[in-house]
Amino acid sequence: MVRLRGFQKLTTIEEAKKLFFDNQKFRRWKIELVPIWDALNRVLADDLIAGENLPRFDRSAVDGYAVKARDTFGASQFKPKTLKLTSGSEVKKGEAKQVWTGNRLPIGADAVLMLEDVRRVGDSLIEVWTAVTPSENVSKRGEDIAKGEVAAKARTRLKPHHLALISALGISEVPVFKKPKVAILATGNELVEAGEKLRQDQIYETNRIMLASLCHELGAEPIDLGIAKDDIDEIKQKLKHGLKKADVAVTTGGTSVGVSDLVPTAINELGKPGVIVHGIAMRPAMPTALAVVDSKPIIVLSGNPVAAFFGFEVFARPLILRILGIENESRPIVVARLTRRTSTVLGRKTFVRVRVFKQNGEFYAEPISARGSGIISTLTRANGYIIVPENRDGLEDDETVPVHLFDALEVFNENV
Amino acid sequence: MVRLRGFQKLTTIEEAKKLFFDNQKFRRWKIELVPIWDALNRVLADDLIAGENLPRFDRSAVDGYAVKARDTFGASQFKPKTLKLTSGSEVKKGEAKQVWTGNRLPIGADAVLMLEDVRRVGDSLIEVWTAVTPSENVSKRGEDIAKGEVAAKARTRLKPHHLALISALGISEVPVFKKPKVAILATGNELVEAGEKLRQDQIYETNRIMLASLCHELGAEPIDLGIAKDDIDEIKQKLKHGLKKADVAVTTGGTSVGVSDLVPTAINELGKPGVIVHGIAMRPAMPTALAVVDSKPIIVLSGNPVAAFFGFEVFARPLILRILGIENESRPIVVARLTRRTSTVLGRKTFVRVRVFKQNGEFYAEPISARGSGIISTLTRANGYIIVPENRDGLEDDETVPVHLFDALEVFNENV
Repeated sequence: MVRLRGFQKLTTIEEAKKLFFDNQKFRRWKIELVPIWDALNRVLADDLIAGENLPRFDRSAVDGYAVKARDTFGASQFKPKTLKLTSGSEVKKGEAKQVWTGNRLPIGADAVLMLEDVRRVGDSLIEVWTAVTPSENVSKRGEDIAKGEVAAKARTRLKPHHLALISALGISEVPVFKKPKVAILATGNELVEAGEKLRQDQIYETNRIMLASLCHELGAEPIDLGIAKDDIDEIKQKLKHGLKKADVAVTTGGTSVGVSDLVPTAINELGKPGVIVHGIAMRPAMPTALAVVDSKPIIVLSGNPVAAFFGFEVFARPLILRILGIENESRPIVVARLTRRTSTVLGRKTFVRVRVFKQNGEFYAEPISARGSGIISTLTRANGYIIVPENRDGLEDDETVPVHLFDALEVFNENV
Repeated sequence: MVRLRGFQKLTTIEEAKKLFFDNQKFRRWKIELVPIWDALNRVLADDLIAGENLPRFDRSAVDGYAVKARDTFGASQFKPKTLKLTSGSEVKKGEAKQVWTGNRLPIGADAVLMLEDVRRVGDSLIEVWTAVTPSENVSKRGEDIAKGEVAAKARTRLKPHHLALISALGISEVPVFKKPKVAILATGNELVEAGEKLRQDQIYETNRIMLASLCHELGAEPIDLGIAKDDIDEIKQKLKHGLKKADVAVTTGGTSVGVSDLVPTAINELGKPGVIVHGIAMRPAMPTALAVVDSKPIIVLSGNPVAAFFGFEVFARPLILRILGIENESRPIVVARLTRRTSTVLGRKTFVRVRVFKQNGEFYAEPISARGSGIISTLTRANGYIIVPENRDGLEDDETVPVHLFDALEVFNENV
């Protein structure tokens, strides 16, 4: 019964990730075409090439008068030049035509005078108070995006401003990667669905909704497999069913060493290679296991909600991003000053929950004291975390550290 | 025709916001009850009070053996103590009972020995190698959230970890503020819907999808009013219809001074007080107007997509947050070093688009050169912005500045 003594060896996060990813094939992901109105936060599957120049024609960048720049040379407030207003389609020598921002530049014109730099004299003349150079106040054809240029790169997560650019090119449907499907299973005899009645020794299940929500935030589609009892056959059957429909499976609970080590056992019976890593040199989330069955990854998280959160953060998040082909996308990072010292355990990468806020122009991070990974309120009182490396036993008061934000930053005493 | 010369007076952002907000009544917002599975990113309407202790009972925080702490006093690896295993419901003097993380602490036990600190001797005994103090490795009843405590404050935007906590309390439905409805109207004779065919001098409409997406991100519900021609009656009729269904209206286009100044004119004809501010000392988005008609706020944005983006950012975003009662929620802010100098205009608060990234542990912000607020790619090449105050004509190379992120941070050459 050696295993009862705890994990014999803990694997570092980096090693574990490498082993896990090396056991998977990351092929080009499945693609679907969606209307741009449904494309927010989806990930572009192909480079989007501009089929047209943007703008499609030289246009005025301001409200004012289109002119030949040369006609304004030498004009000043003390020595204005006079131009004749035209309503024709062409601006000839000595003429000006009124234009509004965005209007196509009339033939013959090569610059625009701003309203402020002109005085209207009657209905047919303007006095020009300043000189403009050719192309001044003009948006040149193709200066935003030239025809043939890449307007948005493959693997861009589409945000509001990307959708504006895509619309500007007249594109109404875009190829995006399908949402990876993530099957989520909670295990534990003691678990009951929120809203139902608790009996003695039972507790409410908390992790499925949290993990499903994290999937939504990443652009993955959660598939809820519900709650399984601590029963190898039930776990196997539900996981098998889930893996048929999903691309990734995530479980919580039943991952500690010992008699309750059911999920890893079930997974090893399900297929090869099974569990690849079990026991990570991190805190919380030490009992996390990583597995692959029939080419599908399974992330086996602790039943403790805080451990499940960080196990998901460290392994499921980069996995989902990698499936979607996204590189370098990070949670926002704020560098902040610790309000007090916090101690951690040597030899484990420790994820310290903090509340980070900006006050009077300075960023502060207040460590949330935690007594265990079961204390969910250490997450809800926090909005970010600090990663303390294995070779440190804590962080000093006043130390400046990068904080990874998983919730909004709070700002006090500031405008805008 | 004095107005043709441009805005006579620009209002600062702070003044404009104050005038705009002072002309509105922010009453307690409408509430609805939603299932927690639909509550992600919704805003909690009331304090959520814990009806039960969390945990509901003292429980083991580790896998191990529940004991009376006193029985372990003096135990060490050199001088272990021996305890008798029990399978009963109570732990008596000299006894230990095996427990797994999360198990209710058996009657009589007051601490838990970790597996690592114990050696099992046959089926009925354990050797204890270390002493534990009372409550050691125990999650005390109510230590996460005590009965009657506020588990989540009113006005919390519900993130995955909040939903976990709410589930833990057995709550399956939560009162949230209704989504403010935002009617969005684009105006302009030249505008065509993406996907349709362009004729000479026409351009594709870009702003409705961008603004609707920004509304989604904030937890508001956009109502698309489509495109209106540059026609006062059409604008009035569409806005009136929109204001009937919506809580806020946002328009784009037709806001410059001059003959195309149609939207402010239409609004003033619609009702009182009408346009409150027109012309803001900011860049881009100078021609933004703020109005109130029959107690409903209207934000009149420029037709230029970049100006529309920043007008929304500065006025619509805080308005929507204020309606939802959210204070202090900020976009993530990263302090970064400018990769090169950037010049701005004195007397205007300038929003400089930058691409911010983290490389080898340092944050850098690369200004995106912009030649006009019509250049959408200055947004898509950026992921954040810097606010340059009115009294500066630029920022120096190497200067360290706060960047507001509107898209994901890019991180290079780093592990988590």
